Amino acid sequence: MSILTIGTLAFDSISTPFGNAEKVIGGACTYISWAASYWYKNINLVSIVGDDFPESEIKALEARGVNMQGLVRVPGKKSFFWAGKYHKDMNNRDTLVTDLNVLAEFNPVLPESYRNSQYIMLGNLTPDIQLSVLDQLTSKPKLIILDTMNFWMDHSMDKLREVIARVDVLTINDEEARQLSGEHSLVRAAAKIHHMGPKFLVIKKGEHGALLFHDDQIFFAPGLPVPDVIDPTGAGDSFAGGMIGYLARTDDISYANMKTAIIYGSTMASFCVEDFSLNNLRNLTQQQLHERIRQFEQLSTFQVNELDTMN
Amino acid sequence: MSILTIGTLAFDSISTPFGNAEKVIGGACTYISWAASYWYKNINLVSIVGDDFPESEIKALEARGVNMQGLVRVPGKKSFFWAGKYHKDMNNRDTLVTDLNVLAEFNPVLPESYRNSQYIMLGNLTPDIQLSVLDQLTSKPKLIILDTMNFWMDHSMDKLREVIARVDVLTINDEEARQLSGEHSLVRAAAKIHHMGPKFLVIKKGEHGALLFHDDQIFFAPGLPVPDVIDPTGAGDSFAGGMIGYLARTDDISYANMKTAIIYGSTMASFCVEDFSLNNLRNLTQQQLHERIRQFEQLSTFQVNELDTMN
Repeated sequence: MSILTIGTLAFDSISTPFGNAEKVIGGACTYISWAASYWYKNINLVSIVGDDFPESEIKALEARGVNMQGLVRVPGKKSFFWAGKYHKDMNNRDTLVTDLNVLAEFNPVLPESYRNSQYIMLGNLTPDIQLSVLDQLTSKPKLIILDTMNFWMDHSMDKLREVIARVDVLTINDEEARQLSGEHSLVRAAAKIHHMGPKFLVIKKGEHGALLFHDDQIFFAPGLPVPDVIDPTGAGDSFAGGMIGYLARTDDISYANMKTAIIYGSTMASFCVEDFSLNNLRNLTQQQLHERIRQFEQLSTFQVNELDTMN
Repeated sequence: MSILTIGTLAFDSISTPFGNAEKVIGGACTYISWAASYWYKNINLVSIVGDDFPESEIKALEARGVNMQGLVRVPGKKSFFWAGKYHKDMNNRDTLVTDLNVLAEFNPVLPESYRNSQYIMLGNLTPDIQLSVLDQLTSKPKLIILDTMNFWMDHSMDKLREVIARVDVLTINDEEARQLSGEHSLVRAAAKIHHMGPKFLVIKKGEHGALLFHDDQIFFAPGLPVPDVIDPTGAGDSFAGGMIGYLARTDDISYANMKTAIIYGSTMASFCVEDFSLNNLRNLTQQQLHERIRQFEQLSTFQVNELDTMN
């Protein structure tokens, strides 16, 4: 069994009130793979880089159990580059630069060995590429998770709706859920989005946590209050990676297990934001991870006490 | 044993994207008393009204177990009036009108029977009045909860700090916690505010829930996603009322019980926002309340599964 993940391997330049990071390693697929690799080892990566992307980074991912047959290297070209600026409210950011570079010609062909992957993580990319990946699968996966963003809603809604119709889990933020559904209330938004296809909807609210909607049920994973959020870049991808890594490992896509998966996702995201780039995701210990999962438990657990009312 | 609560009985005019309500019943003490009265009956109210405040409202509160010896009626004067406007993001509002009216001359004298109250709920008012109430108590209360807002931080910080130093629980919103502490990080803000006096800090985040800080421990109560938030006015006061009603009833101020109290507060707030004014707080049944407490449990509960990491 294996996870298949598609997305960018990239460089990011990041400015925050706490400091700057110039041309550091980033990209959805990088964060997803690192976060998933703590919980699952057979990860089929699909991505594209120029000849500027460090071979050491690719080797480091291979050492984490990430298969690189699906990585295209384009000589003489540059890797995808994104520059952004965060303000004091880290829930919002401005994009300063988006250089597609090699991404402009990305047209992935899945290696034979990838085509029967069971857990599919479609990182944020153009819906055309996401559709093409789904079309190349030769067996029906157990679970498809789609991460996307408002850019594709603005520029490619029809294609995006095609992808959404074919996935089991959609992860977007609250404003994107509102845009996609045309509903301000997240409860009403979720009901509409369920009708578009996904049985599970995850609404990510940054520091305010994440909501999981399934049928009429709702689960809420809080954002862990950490002393300092240094850089939120990659938090959503780390979340997705932790989630799919846990689900592939346990091979259980029940609602009950999906809730725990959201906590695993939140755990990986909480580490991600505590430093720039992947710095904090490279050397986590089992003890650190288990302690943080228990922090989420302590954060959420209370004794139910149903008092009689006095009327 | 008794609860003492001080705050306004008032009229509100409210404009939201969902509709308007003109000169409806409002006021911190009204919401606190109604919310608390489902869980506890001996509530000593301290407030002031003009002769425009409906006697039927006072009678309705008395019927809920609220003692009115501490209510001052001023003939020929008007009750406190507030008008506000909410936008689509109900977490923010504009104040359009604040008419102090009788509140300008409010100088409460506690009736003898109030002075040994055990659970004190200081609703949002000028810190001078809050201090005066504390000074009139003849026995040390079991618990003092203070609700306040940025207005007093802007205009009366020294006096406010005096009150804060004397209370056990402070409830404010996230921006107010930042303003009071000078720290953007809520974890760091909480540490500073603990040093100012309160053993417990509740940070209210509206639809994003509420955080309880105590020593190094953090508990998070999610906001219940409801299909439609009609009017958030009074949500914070309903929260405080539910909390102190539950605490007085159980007479247990341990951290574990404080967590459940926060859920009771969130439960009352979730009903409050589903209609204008007190409409939704007047006729709640035990079944409705218990169902909602269980909804909070379902929203928060997950199975912990500590997988071995794969490194």
